[in-house]
Amino acid sequence: MTELKYDVAGIGNALVDVIADADDHFLVANGIEKGGMTLIDTARADELYGRMGQAIEMSGGSCANTIAGLASLGGKGAFFGKVKKDQLGQVFEHDIKSLGVHFPAPLAEDGPPTGRCLILVTPDAQRSMNTYLGAAQNLTADDIDADIIKASFATYMEGYLWDQPGAKAAFLKAAKIAREAGRIVSLTLSDSFCVARYRDEFRKLVADEVDLLFANEAEILSLYEVDLFDEALAQVKKDCKFAALTRSEAGAVIVAEGEVHVVDADKVAKVVDTTGAGDLFASGFLFGLSHGYSPVHSARLGAMAAAEIISHYGPRPQVSLAKLAKEKGL
Amino acid sequence: MTELKYDVAGIGNALVDVIADADDHFLVANGIEKGGMTLIDTARADELYGRMGQAIEMSGGSCANTIAGLASLGGKGAFFGKVKKDQLGQVFEHDIKSLGVHFPAPLAEDGPPTGRCLILVTPDAQRSMNTYLGAAQNLTADDIDADIIKASFATYMEGYLWDQPGAKAAFLKAAKIAREAGRIVSLTLSDSFCVARYRDEFRKLVADEVDLLFANEAEILSLYEVDLFDEALAQVKKDCKFAALTRSEAGAVIVAEGEVHVVDADKVAKVVDTTGAGDLFASGFLFGLSHGYSPVHSARLGAMAAAEIISHYGPRPQVSLAKLAKEKGL
Repeated sequence: MTELKYDVAGIGNALVDVIADADDHFLVANGIEKGGMTLIDTARADELYGRMGQAIEMSGGSCANTIAGLASLGGKGAFFGKVKKDQLGQVFEHDIKSLGVHFPAPLAEDGPPTGRCLILVTPDAQRSMNTYLGAAQNLTADDIDADIIKASFATYMEGYLWDQPGAKAAFLKAAKIAREAGRIVSLTLSDSFCVARYRDEFRKLVADEVDLLFANEAEILSLYEVDLFDEALAQVKKDCKFAALTRSEAGAVIVAEGEVHVVDADKVAKVVDTTGAGDLFASGFLFGLSHGYSPVHSARLGAMAAAEIISHYGPRPQVSLAKLAKEKGL
Repeated sequence: MTELKYDVAGIGNALVDVIADADDHFLVANGIEKGGMTLIDTARADELYGRMGQAIEMSGGSCANTIAGLASLGGKGAFFGKVKKDQLGQVFEHDIKSLGVHFPAPLAEDGPPTGRCLILVTPDAQRSMNTYLGAAQNLTADDIDADIIKASFATYMEGYLWDQPGAKAAFLKAAKIAREAGRIVSLTLSDSFCVARYRDEFRKLVADEVDLLFANEAEILSLYEVDLFDEALAQVKKDCKFAALTRSEAGAVIVAEGEVHVVDADKVAKVVDTTGAGDLFASGFLFGLSHGYSPVHSARLGAMAAAEIISHYGPRPQVSLAKLAKEKGL
């Protein structure tokens, strides 16, 4: 068996976030699905950006945020995703490498520019995302290095990958390698609209290939087409060895080898921007499991990381999560 | 006399800030002048960026921050500065235009990339700046539109412009137009190292051309080469009709037609990043004067804007300053 070199290998859309405040009227006037993630083309991206207020830019991408959070906790991560060799691509590369994350895919010399996620944050701290995939859509199975997958405790993938055939192929290749190597295959359902687009495929994937599933309440209800959380919970217990179901301020419900645990959310003085809450919960949970902590302890790390991320703008930690965990006795 | 169309026309280096945390050891190990602004070349920018941690990007530039703050207060601003037509230049253009600021200089089609200021924020919230001017250095007198200067209550310029011959010429041209049109010529000394580089020229400029001077304590002491604040104050009273001398948490000392007023700093729960404190003080003071408020009232607006900016990362307001002023009865 290959020696373990990484805690988590992540595969996801490599994006730079462009974050601005907006009110609900702006969302309505611009036809933006509140709380969701909508794919947009160049023309729509230009139009929307032109209407948005002053913004801040920082590296994003759901899975990349998770790997960045894992690194901030002191974990060893690798990330597969595509950016172009342009200014924003160099920002993405710099940020993820600065955390010590292995980022092997070469920056694209041509093709579309680095992908951007235009994020509108409303006064209720909800984020509504509009993603121009750009270079991210050119991730293919060829970008996946089997040796890295085999050397990772877990492989973590985002449901968003399903939106592009090449990325989907990369996902399936990595899952196969991880499974055959006896490693953990983990998936986040990403977004309830994304689940609605690919429900049948995701159901099969979750039942057949996924060891560890991450989902929020809306996503898991949508996956199983049920109205009650407990019905979804009963189904996921059958499908997956582990599941982490996040319910915002109501905390998280953890499934671990048939047992169910409830872990409270951490208190936050002021919720500023919920972007990255789920991503960072996954950081903590994956860090914990890969370091031999119990599922409950791992979920507490997830709750801590999620609380840090929602207390400021943007989906990357502003403090060392390893230091924070130490301060909190985790 | 030309009709007033703008409160303030600003001329400055157009930059995108790249902001990361660092400890004092990092500053020492990388030979960074703590609290200052150092000009760097491409090689040094690449080296330093490569060593910096994960960063956030947002529009910056001292004078541009002031004009952005003025716009956030509800003022009408224009800004002259140069960026390239690249991703970061488009970010700069978007952000300043999104505030309703008139930004007439066309984006450069070739030449160096958009300028960046690599900002390291230490745990004491002090910021140390390393500026790669890039396209900003190509601002020239030709970029200054005389009609805009004539139509502005005040023209506001940054001392940093002195570092480039073209920008200096732009400054002098604008000052001459403003003076001849009977408008206010205002200057910020920018940085004590900058003052040390051009002390003699700045002394002459302040005495002969500047109606309103902005400086912090270190800058004004350096300008007059004195040790005591009161000595500097006595000199600036002779040189300028108005002066706003900022002293961090000790508040500001305002000179207004021979009279001296002391205005307290606003309380801040937690100082996160002092980048932009002086820039935003100038926003409030200029907004106030151009709207007919008293110098003391104007300084209170400055103190309010400075307090907002140091309570978070980055030099652009995160909330509407107009709304904040209303809430505070200003």
